[in-house]
Amino acid sequence: MGNVIQERLAALRSLMAEKKVDAYLIPTDDFHASEYVGDYFKCRKYMTGFTGSAGTAVVMQDMAGLWTDGRYFIQAEQQLTGSTVTLFKMGEPDVPTVHEFLEKNLKEGQCLGFDGRTVGAKEAEELAGKLAKNGVSIFCEEDLVGAIWSDRPALSCEPVQELDVKWCGKSRADKCCEIRKAMEEKGADAFVLTSLDDIAWLLNIRGGDVHCNPVVLSYLVMTKQEILLFANAKAFPAEVLEALAKDGVTLHPYDDIYNYVTKFAEGQKVLLCRAKVNSRLVNSIPEGVKILDEENLTLLPKAIKNPTEVENERIAHIKDGVAVTKFICWLKKNVGKVPMTEISVAEHLYELRAQQENFMGNSFDPIISYGPHAAMNHYSATPETDVPIEAEGFLLADTGGQYLEGTTDITRTIVMGPTSEEQKKFFTAVLRGTLNLAAAKFRYGCRGLNLDYLARGPLWEMGEDFNHGTGHGVGYFLNVHEGPNGFRWKVVPERNDSAVFEEGMITSDEPGYYVEGAYGIRHENMIVCKKAEKTAFGQFMCFEHLTMVPFDLDAVVPEQMSEKERELLNQYHAQVYEKISPYLEPEEAEWLKEATRAI
Amino acid sequence: MGNVIQERLAALRSLMAEKKVDAYLIPTDDFHASEYVGDYFKCRKYMTGFTGSAGTAVVMQDMAGLWTDGRYFIQAEQQLTGSTVTLFKMGEPDVPTVHEFLEKNLKEGQCLGFDGRTVGAKEAEELAGKLAKNGVSIFCEEDLVGAIWSDRPALSCEPVQELDVKWCGKSRADKCCEIRKAMEEKGADAFVLTSLDDIAWLLNIRGGDVHCNPVVLSYLVMTKQEILLFANAKAFPAEVLEALAKDGVTLHPYDDIYNYVTKFAEGQKVLLCRAKVNSRLVNSIPEGVKILDEENLTLLPKAIKNPTEVENERIAHIKDGVAVTKFICWLKKNVGKVPMTEISVAEHLYELRAQQENFMGNSFDPIISYGPHAAMNHYSATPETDVPIEAEGFLLADTGGQYLEGTTDITRTIVMGPTSEEQKKFFTAVLRGTLNLAAAKFRYGCRGLNLDYLARGPLWEMGEDFNHGTGHGVGYFLNVHEGPNGFRWKVVPERNDSAVFEEGMITSDEPGYYVEGAYGIRHENMIVCKKAEKTAFGQFMCFEHLTMVPFDLDAVVPEQMSEKERELLNQYHAQVYEKISPYLEPEEAEWLKEATRAI
Repeated sequence: MGNVIQERLAALRSLMAEKKVDAYLIPTDDFHASEYVGDYFKCRKYMTGFTGSAGTAVVMQDMAGLWTDGRYFIQAEQQLTGSTVTLFKMGEPDVPTVHEFLEKNLKEGQCLGFDGRTVGAKEAEELAGKLAKNGVSIFCEEDLVGAIWSDRPALSCEPVQELDVKWCGKSRADKCCEIRKAMEEKGADAFVLTSLDDIAWLLNIRGGDVHCNPVVLSYLVMTKQEILLFANAKAFPAEVLEALAKDGVTLHPYDDIYNYVTKFAEGQKVLLCRAKVNSRLVNSIPEGVKILDEENLTLLPKAIKNPTEVENERIAHIKDGVAVTKFICWLKKNVGKVPMTEISVAEHLYELRAQQENFMGNSFDPIISYGPHAAMNHYSATPETDVPIEAEGFLLADTGGQYLEGTTDITRTIVMGPTSEEQKKFFTAVLRGTLNLAAAKFRYGCRGLNLDYLARGPLWEMGEDFNHGTGHGVGYFLNVHEGPNGFRWKVVPERNDSAVFEEGMITSDEPGYYVEGAYGIRHENMIVCKKAEKTAFGQFMCFEHLTMVPFDLDAVVPEQMSEKERELLNQYHAQVYEKISPYLEPEEAEWLKEATRAI
Repeated sequence: MGNVIQERLAALRSLMAEKKVDAYLIPTDDFHASEYVGDYFKCRKYMTGFTGSAGTAVVMQDMAGLWTDGRYFIQAEQQLTGSTVTLFKMGEPDVPTVHEFLEKNLKEGQCLGFDGRTVGAKEAEELAGKLAKNGVSIFCEEDLVGAIWSDRPALSCEPVQELDVKWCGKSRADKCCEIRKAMEEKGADAFVLTSLDDIAWLLNIRGGDVHCNPVVLSYLVMTKQEILLFANAKAFPAEVLEALAKDGVTLHPYDDIYNYVTKFAEGQKVLLCRAKVNSRLVNSIPEGVKILDEENLTLLPKAIKNPTEVENERIAHIKDGVAVTKFICWLKKNVGKVPMTEISVAEHLYELRAQQENFMGNSFDPIISYGPHAAMNHYSATPETDVPIEAEGFLLADTGGQYLEGTTDITRTIVMGPTSEEQKKFFTAVLRGTLNLAAAKFRYGCRGLNLDYLARGPLWEMGEDFNHGTGHGVGYFLNVHEGPNGFRWKVVPERNDSAVFEEGMITSDEPGYYVEGAYGIRHENMIVCKKAEKTAFGQFMCFEHLTMVPFDLDAVVPEQMSEKERELLNQYHAQVYEKISPYLEPEEAEWLKEATRAI
């Protein structure tokens, strides 16, 4: 592979020289800031050979570098061998960030190039501002990697389907009408929307253009009169096109958006989110147009699930609960008897989910990690790393499904055999956090910041913690990660997940605990925010568990829980048994009875 | 009184006509945005007859209005009778704010007047901006009320004393050196400081110019070379002046600050906090001077008590604990036997505090409220409202003392006799909140926002709450309310009390519960933030109780507390007994033994 990469680098450098570009920046993003990117967009992988999900490459005449974070150091080192690409370990002492590197190494009169479609407008502006101080210019109108990538895969063009109102609860026409009203309130003449889950939500369409995310590669512009969808027409069955047309949505070629926006008239007000729309698109808008930089108008209505969506999610979670409960029962009965590995059991779980009606696929790549692997937060087994699962320790299973009735995301830490007192202590502490957070009752107006202590408290009491957020918003048969709700104790502005909890928001509740080289624990339920009573003090809010799968009592130490916490666990388990057992085989139901016994 | 007010209004209106001022605004503030104001500054009271601690008056030729909030509606109605001043009930539906009223009632070409020294620069700017849109001008160079107030009291001029380093832990020279360093980091040529507690803290001086706040009426300017203190020289004993001079602090007449700042040179950078410095002072600074609008550089070092201060605070709280414990013991033994009223017992508590060495006075007017009075958050007994205390229900005592060893602030709800199950339920719930918040262990970086749920949770669970913040920062032998630390679940920007907790910050922990017309409960301890262990996850923090006085077990329902909560209470009570009993009479110590028994 190393030689191939060197050839590609040589081709790119020659083109850079021709275009007078001194450094070329290659991020991981597609044109829509999607969490996962399709093969067409994997320029960074093409240029470096590194296959991880996060990283940024920089190519200059005399160097090539790849920046990635701690979870990928080992993998990147291996994959970069022989490529001449230097690994920059992000977060390590004395390692410059990409921006710092560019600021330091580009001199007056030099030029930085990148494909403006792969960098958000806000980030591009910040970078350009820093470099301009040093007299460095920017060239972002061309995709130089694309120009040398002869056998580049085609853009994904998976078939589009409509999502019936019986699933999503609100018609496209009603949604568009509400967004137009919001545009009017903001004084916007047009609204440019490029994040794929927002477009899919707004138009009640689903596709398969991003791995695990049932979205359609597209851009959308809404004006006072029109709704223009820029996408590959081949992906749209005639009846979908017809239905869209009936609601005033016209289809245009995917790339035409860049030309379309050049025609916004001077003085027009265009609403868009600079953090999400790519820089080439924003740069294509004429100077006299006023850009209203706001959150996408779809962000909140997408996050606030309507009553139909919430009711469907309950159904999805019973199906998913049946699959995962069967999975756990099978694992615990068969471990040590039949051979199993991380990959093989992931396949088994997929089959169990696939048996459920309206199952549409995984909502993300399953994280099935055994023993020490579970201490690596983003571990995903490959044939090279796969290990047999034996009758001891913990198996961590963080998986999810897409159903017409919604998206699921669940983590269970399953006791495969003997575990230590220490493991049980942390298993119990993390579980207390999961239960206490889900049991919060709070005044309307609270954010994740106000409640996160409930999840971390049992660990913090011991001077322990976990290095990730406690929860993220989840889409409805859409992306498994969405804003603006979440649980976190410190605001991270770029994550935009600290919104006030509204009735209908669905969030994961997933504290964890990890011991490097030894084991990992995470307990994750999805919870939906609901109204509780309204009193003289105002509206109170609470959560309801959507996920319906037992927590493994084999590692729970009841004496380490308060009476209230034991009650919360018992109540939850009683619900799990009631809702899941009717769909199980008799011997599975018997197992579940025991697995959900009151402690 | 009504007629006198009418005469004063007539005099002011005549002067307003002469000065071409169409509306005159009279806030409650002194020139330093102090929480309490001295008699000299009580212009609003002089012009309206209303004596409450909060309110704003507006006088026009054909109207006079007083704006105040809910706690003062009844009092204001009574006091305004016959005055021709209209009461504007703030917060009631359809009642405009002062700013809204002025915006609506002042027409193009008209003029609003106020004494620019009584309005913060930030607020004045906002108001002027709104009015300018309507073509309304501002006249804020003269004190029109002062001009007609013939028998105005003199400015307070209480004697100034030095606070020895053995009390405050750091010399004036060291503090000034650190603040100069901070100035340098901010690139400031001068630092203008007008908040009285900041000046007293910086110079290690204490006075008595504001009720309950041991501060000195003064302004301060620090430049790279000089420290100018603008204050009444008569208040300074020779040895204090000498000590100040030795550290480079020169004294200038109080009013000279306004002239002094006109001499800042163009291009100089002057750091000040626009929210705290009055508008006349800021307006006096020449245009070419660059104002760096920042928090006072003294804010954080004042809030972060040094080890000497913390150790002294522990001593102050033992003395205060002895006084308050004796008080509670006396109350409970004598109620129903000897006559007592809210005012008489407040006097008794004062005497008990006064018996303690280095007692310097109350830190605020005692709130001793019996029965329904305790449901009014800001109730303070007057001869007219004073009631006898009988052998039933709750007595709420929120009081505090000033000692050379620090400032105290404590609330106890004392059971005077039979109480209902409901009263006990809420007494217990509020106590759980107090204990749980004080027991928080958390990662460095947490703010009050992250922890407030601990105090409110027990009430929120029941759909109940209390309508005030959970805690405020407390000064060291200084103001009982200071920023930037506090407990609150929503950010209130103008309160500036959501800072990250630092070791040495002292905060009150005071949840409550109030039933209008019936009773009120509040349990308040002062707690100091300390470092707990440092682990792989970083520095953990915790709190230590400073206040050492029993909570009244007569209204505690142990079954409504978790085991952990009972343990917290028992541990606290064991400490109280250990620290306080040595200073009690034998029969009091015996009583305390029982009052602090494990439950």
